[in-house]
Amino acid sequence: MSLKDAEQAAIAEARAVQHTTRRPSVPALEELLFSPLEVLDHGFVRVIDYMGDDDAIVQAARVSYGRGTSKLRDDRGLIRYLMRHRHTTPFEMCEIKLHVKLPIFVARQWIRHRTANVNEYSGRYSILDREFYLPSPDQLGEQSRSNRQGRDAKLSPQQAAQVLKLLRDDAERCYDHYEELLNEDECGAAKRPDDPQLARELARMNLTLNYYTQWYWKIDLHNLLHFLALRIDAHAQHEIRVYGDAIARIVQAWVPTAWEAFVDYRLHAALFSRGELAAIQARLRGEQPDLHALGLSAREQREFEAKLAGAALSP
Amino acid sequence: MSLKDAEQAAIAEARAVQHTTRRPSVPALEELLFSPLEVLDHGFVRVIDYMGDDDAIVQAARVSYGRGTSKLRDDRGLIRYLMRHRHTTPFEMCEIKLHVKLPIFVARQWIRHRTANVNEYSGRYSILDREFYLPSPDQLGEQSRSNRQGRDAKLSPQQAAQVLKLLRDDAERCYDHYEELLNEDECGAAKRPDDPQLARELARMNLTLNYYTQWYWKIDLHNLLHFLALRIDAHAQHEIRVYGDAIARIVQAWVPTAWEAFVDYRLHAALFSRGELAAIQARLRGEQPDLHALGLSAREQREFEAKLAGAALSP
Amino acid sequence: MSLKDAEQAAIAEARAVQHTTRRPSVPALEELLFSPLEVLDHGFVRVIDYMGDDDAIVQAARVSYGRGTSKLRDDRGLIRYLMRHRHTTPFEMCEIKLHVKLPIFVARQWIRHRTANVNEYSGRYSILDREFYLPSPDQLGEQSRSNRQGRDAKLSPQQAAQVLKLLRDDAERCYDHYEELLNEDECGAAKRPDDPQLARELARMNLTLNYYTQWYWKIDLHNLLHFLALRIDAHAQHEIRVYGDAIARIVQAWVPTAWEAFVDYRLHAALFSRGELAAIQARLRGEQPDLHALGLSAREQREFEAKLAGAALSP
Amino acid sequence: MSLKDAEQAAIAEARAVQHTTRRPSVPALEELLFSPLEVLDHGFVRVIDYMGDDDAIVQAARVSYGRGTSKLRDDRGLIRYLMRHRHTTPFEMCEIKLHVKLPIFVARQWIRHRTANVNEYSGRYSILDREFYLPSPDQLGEQSRSNRQGRDAKLSPQQAAQVLKLLRDDAERCYDHYEELLNEDECGAAKRPDDPQLARELARMNLTLNYYTQWYWKIDLHNLLHFLALRIDAHAQHEIRVYGDAIARIVQAWVPTAWEAFVDYRLHAALFSRGELAAIQARLRGEQPDLHALGLSAREQREFEAKLAGAALSP
Repeated sequence: MSLKDAEQAAIAEARAVQHTTRRPSVPALEELLFSPLEVLDHGFVRVIDYMGDDDAIVQAARVSYGRGTSKLRDDRGLIRYLMRHRHTTPFEMCEIKLHVKLPIFVARQWIRHRTANVNEYSGRYSILDREFYLPSPDQLGEQSRSNRQGRDAKLSPQQAAQVLKLLRDDAERCYDHYEELLNEDECGAAKRPDDPQLARELARMNLTLNYYTQWYWKIDLHNLLHFLALRIDAHAQHEIRVYGDAIARIVQAWVPTAWEAFVDYRLHAALFSRGELAAIQARLRGEQPDLHALGLSAREQREFEAKLAGAALSP
Repeated sequence: MSLKDAEQAAIAEARAVQHTTRRPSVPALEELLFSPLEVLDHGFVRVIDYMGDDDAIVQAARVSYGRGTSKLRDDRGLIRYLMRHRHTTPFEMCEIKLHVKLPIFVARQWIRHRTANVNEYSGRYSILDREFYLPSPDQLGEQSRSNRQGRDAKLSPQQAAQVLKLLRDDAERCYDHYEELLNEDECGAAKRPDDPQLARELARMNLTLNYYTQWYWKIDLHNLLHFLALRIDAHAQHEIRVYGDAIARIVQAWVPTAWEAFVDYRLHAALFSRGELAAIQARLRGEQPDLHALGLSAREQREFEAKLAGAALSP
Repeated sequence: MSLKDAEQAAIAEARAVQHTTRRPSVPALEELLFSPLEVLDHGFVRVIDYMGDDDAIVQAARVSYGRGTSKLRDDRGLIRYLMRHRHTTPFEMCEIKLHVKLPIFVARQWIRHRTANVNEYSGRYSILDREFYLPSPDQLGEQSRSNRQGRDAKLSPQQAAQVLKLLRDDAERCYDHYEELLNEDECGAAKRPDDPQLARELARMNLTLNYYTQWYWKIDLHNLLHFLALRIDAHAQHEIRVYGDAIARIVQAWVPTAWEAFVDYRLHAALFSRGELAAIQARLRGEQPDLHALGLSAREQREFEAKLAGAALSP
Repeated sequence: MSLKDAEQAAIAEARAVQHTTRRPSVPALEELLFSPLEVLDHGFVRVIDYMGDDDAIVQAARVSYGRGTSKLRDDRGLIRYLMRHRHTTPFEMCEIKLHVKLPIFVARQWIRHRTANVNEYSGRYSILDREFYLPSPDQLGEQSRSNRQGRDAKLSPQQAAQVLKLLRDDAERCYDHYEELLNEDECGAAKRPDDPQLARELARMNLTLNYYTQWYWKIDLHNLLHFLALRIDAHAQHEIRVYGDAIARIVQAWVPTAWEAFVDYRLHAALFSRGELAAIQARLRGEQPDLHALGLSAREQREFEAKLAGAALSP
């Protein structure tokens, strides 16, 4: 991460201010507020604002007049019941706003989650910084053979160095040319007075997809948990998964009871198809069912055994 | 169902017209087109239009130039893979438009599905018909003790008759007064010339929640399947479930491969929580795990055994 | 409005609690927090929570690190620029959560705004209160002749009394029968031990559309302003407009600069069609254009003159 | 545009098939079906499927049983009324599905329209083609001084040639290296057997933002018109505006009456703020109002005069 001094000062200043409020507040999240959590080489996630807490879920489910009830045990039970039975609307009553800095190719996956509000830094309007993502060497993997969307065997150190040199050189050169096209000094005047200053909305097309962008992103808790279920999954691309991991820590601090229910009933839960259910039942009767005859393809059979083995996972 | 002559004629006329088109067409759904499927005592669902078919799902997943591929077996496999792994966007590429007539209290549940387009018959603008829902006697159940949202033991015939008389009398009386307030003859003139004609937007408030309304409802296949998963579930209220059942027949005619995948991977699938997975694994090892110690409440333990037993269900 | 003692106590208790927070806070809205604003005879709107303020709009538009800028004047200018040019996403960065009590027929209009989160009091699960809406006598109007969706001439006092008696009697009778069908005493036991207790999800169908329901409703500022633009319009039904008016007061306290911009650029702005623009231009040249020849129907001509006359409106 | 032979053949094959259907069909749109409309140097828009026509708007607004009414004149009047009064839901009852090939930096603007369904060609899964956007020389403009998001003065031929050479060289080199990183021959085997085959999801980050991607995009007519209102506007970036122009031709063929209403009441309409309305009124009275005193900033005053002058625009 590489915040400029002015950015760090702005964050420190914002963190120094305290207000009083009647709204529900979460001390553990207040502690995190505004501070960037580092992700990848130059990225971050930081909490800008939030609305609601675990109690707010209960309150909305009950359409109640006051702030929650006498019995904490009941509230936890209700939240777990709602999660288990996919009563999703009470979770929509909590909202969080994040400031995220992320590579453009990650942003392109992220934006597919439509039920969120976004304000992105504009490359039409402003000049992007010279900041691009380079994977750490141990993240460079070969194209997976078994999974057309994944990576497998790691590259050797020499191979990795070669790849990174190539990526770095192209990114640097493209940025050099981006600057050449823009032809702007710090005051906006032409560096080379006789040359044109190409429109920013055109010049940016010369940047590579690993350049960083940033945005404000606001989403409700239900849709955020859905985002996390997909993005901290083993099948998600590493570069977005690490953002998911950072946000998971935030959610855990914000709504610990809802998070625990999510882990138990979604994240470490497993869905078994009709055929898989029949197979489980047969095995519980002591039989050795023919999975193929139950309609499971070879791939499904592998997935089935993996899900069953996953039962032993710790949280 | 009680279509007026003019309505039946309009439907027959629409069904008689044939066009030629380059668009994908589904003969089994063409057969159903415009014809009302009866639901409850006066309600119906009828297909007004549709876009796409099973092939369109495949085509979108592949972002392809043509109309699907050589191998039917591959296409079915892809659809099943997409359903199993919750790749939902290709299913959004099919769309259907329905005309539905339904009691207002059912409409109020239905409209909670936000990802759809709706045009409802307006009680501000028009006069509602004298059509209200009366349950069939065997649908009258007592408030459930175990499930605060359900019904249980059926009423005796005498009790049912009493309930129905009360419901009918109130609905009829409320409509009589609705008409009295409107004070309109068939040409819109005052029936009782010295009395006022109350604004329709006001008079309608005197109708009971079992009066029928109707709307055009348009939704994509992914969101429709989500609607069905919730609404043909045993926990859904009977009066909306029967609409779900009718729509399920339509979907089966429209996209049989996607429907089959939906049945296998969603409808007759079961989600097991972390604790439940641990219990299954222990049982498969021949142990008798303590479900309570695994974190399952008494209610969850019942749900767990029910899900396991459900494995034997036929489609 | 008719809050029960327990409800009033819960509200007072919630209002008494103060937290400290780093989040932006709005003293004028804190003052309103949790207190019900009365609407109609038994309804209310009360603010449960909020996220963001005028500065948050600016901050999101700039994707900035800190809390706004040095110059208040610039911030106001930016907000007005964003509103004028329909840059809507920064306004989505503010969120508000309301608790609303409203007649069912109003709720049915309200829910058509899909871009919001809702938790409604459930008539399947709980028993609705004996509270129904009766218009005040001066709100009883005849069906409009010019506008098929509106009301016109007021009823005479005697006529109004007659209408209200009829509405009240039907609502009371329907509720008496609702209670009879439920057959529950305060502990849930049968009042008449030999009679059934009809399921709540069935009994509720006997209530009329003027019964009150309530919900938690959460929405971002952009969509809320869109809601208000439609619902505080003269063409909206009076019974929803008064809710719009109450919410407008809340928004004004919350984000005064955005509200002022909304008033200037949306609420008291007017859209002129191509033909109307041509007419204005001709008149400014001193001509008397033939509005019909410019494509304006008789109705559009009336609308045109009304919009032009509206120019003199005060805010 | 540069379709491969197999792609052209697939399109020709799809166009050759005819079905019969009871659904509304639009001959003028059938004619366009599947054929790519060229946009930019390698992009296109082609219609894959559609649902509804002008009549379907009327039918939904009336929640009718049949296919439209006797009087064409009434239907046109209704569509124009709906457009004028922003009754948007009937326009949502028409749906269209497009296949679009577009530069990534255009795709990033486009995707901000959230109310649509999208399936994009996956760079994780597949290898992108060597196709990138190079502006035509007359589209190369300098950064605008008056509008921070726009372009102004054109470059001289020599300057343009220099810019294009730079863009082309970087794009070519980045693709060369992309291929080097992938290290795949046409069968997927390693071209250089001793070197690794970097995962596709990683290698793609070396491509520049002017590379082409493609997607299936499905949207309803209301949201499509909103997209067009923003994207064929003079303030939109040229590279997305030309896609808007192509889609506008499609919409005109599809729903000519709705399109005409859109042109009259949205595209060539103008919104005047409260202050601008007051100014118009004063001028119509023959006065010379002080625009600044009416609250119009210098920029708003220019915008005001431009809108007024626009009144004379032909469609």
